Amino acid sequence: MEPNLSQDGGSGRLLLVAGTHGNERNAPWLLEQWRQRPQLLASAGLELELMIGNPAALAANRRYIDRDLNRSFAPELLRDPERQELEVLRARELLELVGPAGRRPCPVVLDLHSTTSGMGNSLVVYGRRPTDLALAAAIQARLGLPIYLHEADAAQTGFLVERWPCGLVIEVGPVAQGLLQATTCRQTQLAVEAACDSLAAAAAGSLRLPDGVTVHRHLGSLDLPRNAQGQPAAIVHPLRQNRDWAPVHGGAPLFWQADGCSLGFEPTDLGFEPTDRELDHWPVFINEAAYGEKNIALGLTRRERWPCAVAWVDALRQCLRRN
Amino acid sequence: MEPNLSQDGGSGRLLLVAGTHGNERNAPWLLEQWRQRPQLLASAGLELELMIGNPAALAANRRYIDRDLNRSFAPELLRDPERQELEVLRARELLELVGPAGRRPCPVVLDLHSTTSGMGNSLVVYGRRPTDLALAAAIQARLGLPIYLHEADAAQTGFLVERWPCGLVIEVGPVAQGLLQATTCRQTQLAVEAACDSLAAAAAGSLRLPDGVTVHRHLGSLDLPRNAQGQPAAIVHPLRQNRDWAPVHGGAPLFWQADGCSLGFEPTDLGFEPTDRELDHWPVFINEAAYGEKNIALGLTRRERWPCAVAWVDALRQCLRRN
Repeated sequence: MEPNLSQDGGSGRLLLVAGTHGNERNAPWLLEQWRQRPQLLASAGLELELMIGNPAALAANRRYIDRDLNRSFAPELLRDPERQELEVLRARELLELVGPAGRRPCPVVLDLHSTTSGMGNSLVVYGRRPTDLALAAAIQARLGLPIYLHEADAAQTGFLVERWPCGLVIEVGPVAQGLLQATTCRQTQLAVEAACDSLAAAAAGSLRLPDGVTVHRHLGSLDLPRNAQGQPAAIVHPLRQNRDWAPVHGGAPLFWQADGCSLGFEPTDLGFEPTDRELDHWPVFINEAAYGEKNIALGLTRRERWPCAVAWVDALRQCLRRN
Repeated sequence: MEPNLSQDGGSGRLLLVAGTHGNERNAPWLLEQWRQRPQLLASAGLELELMIGNPAALAANRRYIDRDLNRSFAPELLRDPERQELEVLRARELLELVGPAGRRPCPVVLDLHSTTSGMGNSLVVYGRRPTDLALAAAIQARLGLPIYLHEADAAQTGFLVERWPCGLVIEVGPVAQGLLQATTCRQTQLAVEAACDSLAAAAAGSLRLPDGVTVHRHLGSLDLPRNAQGQPAAIVHPLRQNRDWAPVHGGAPLFWQADGCSLGFEPTDLGFEPTDRELDHWPVFINEAAYGEKNIALGLTRRERWPCAVAWVDALRQCLRRN
């Protein structure tokens, strides 16, 4: 089915944002292809809004100009008139244009990212909103994508999708920054099409979720070991590289020194109980290039199976009816 | 054997340059490890000079500040007093410090790079200087590394290694820009150690080359197909991604459109004869992120086997005796 691209004045339903980070170039390239030939995207009849998140950063092939756009959606930042960084202005603009109460209101957003980590084709959910869980569970039922549930991390806030009633990040890797890569494009498109299919089913009242959804719940982040000057004293162990979603337990090689020695994973380093040493932890975003500046070498999660609630589907349906 | 790190006033023999491109961070990290613990590098008793090529770009995590340092060593550029870009100044400074006629003269340089292409561990030789061919053939005999022979490309000039009597680029990938990756570090170190071993043998008069050396001789470069606005109309085909050094012939899928259609390799597009359609061509630097701005999607080479000349070893030995 051909997508119905919303023009000015239309009532957009699904917002697709690409290029929230300007050096993640696959989704912006896809967006341009879909603009030129809408029939390339199987949108299940949904009305779409296609937006470049950070056009200035995309033009400069940089993650951002003044600050990370995907950390610029915190309400206190948005309403502070003193804050005039380019990305804060752009966050306000996006909300005015296509926010839930914007000129062309969209209840649902997909924010399309890529990563240098070996995350494969994956979803990131922020918090436990029923609408997000319904959509993520539905996509997982269609494609089996792993879900990273990000929550309770005071150091990482202000994500774009949090300002829409329903919103997920689609995260695909590994791909270098600044690079167009066909497999990354294909994976991104498959996830978008599964989301469209799920949302169309939810709007039609025909969405059925499986009994459960598997989530990887964020526990904390680990930085590289550093010397007194703040430089990395060890780097990600080769056994961990591109092994996102594969479990580690206490003592597993995590970092690698230039002398060939390994440093093992110690759950207590993260404030976990010593008894956690025998439990599995599931690393994600292992060696994401952009997280160096955030002092994150990897995130650690716990894999959990949650029952799907009927209320999630109802919430998603209500959300789609809003406009 | 422990390396002998040259201090001020010493007579450096082998110059190792890391961070010629500031977002290629593995070699700079290694260099720092070697500085702190010289015994980590098996330098075969050679005296070493360790230099960061572009410290300002490294600090900014960018390829360069004003212009590509590794295109800033053309003699006409170096002697033009009007040219004052940061990288031109740095090129002059490096030559004054550790050039062949510098304060701490080095006859041989290894310039340590990484790439987003799947080049593996590889060597790049610029032109056909006997000294370079001797060193490259000796490293290939030790580790089997493929050699890209770059020559006769008027659009790409001013490489660092060309200003030293003997110099190679060690090129390792795939690795994203801005990323530390253990396998990349290990590959880089193996190549450096094979070079040290080869140079020590040449200096001692005991270097023996095999009968022949396999080179991939540069024929030309191909850009992505572009639309009227200059944007990519197709991207590198998934069958080509990370398949550097694997041959293609006429009609082989080279580029991929968002509709799933492939565009085949046509040798005539590169000015080759139609009869070349049945010959193998060997792509290199497939989808290197930094070459987007140079309009290079991949380089095309012809694989050739050259007999090794005794004169190459003599030339390398002479070169090492210069200082």
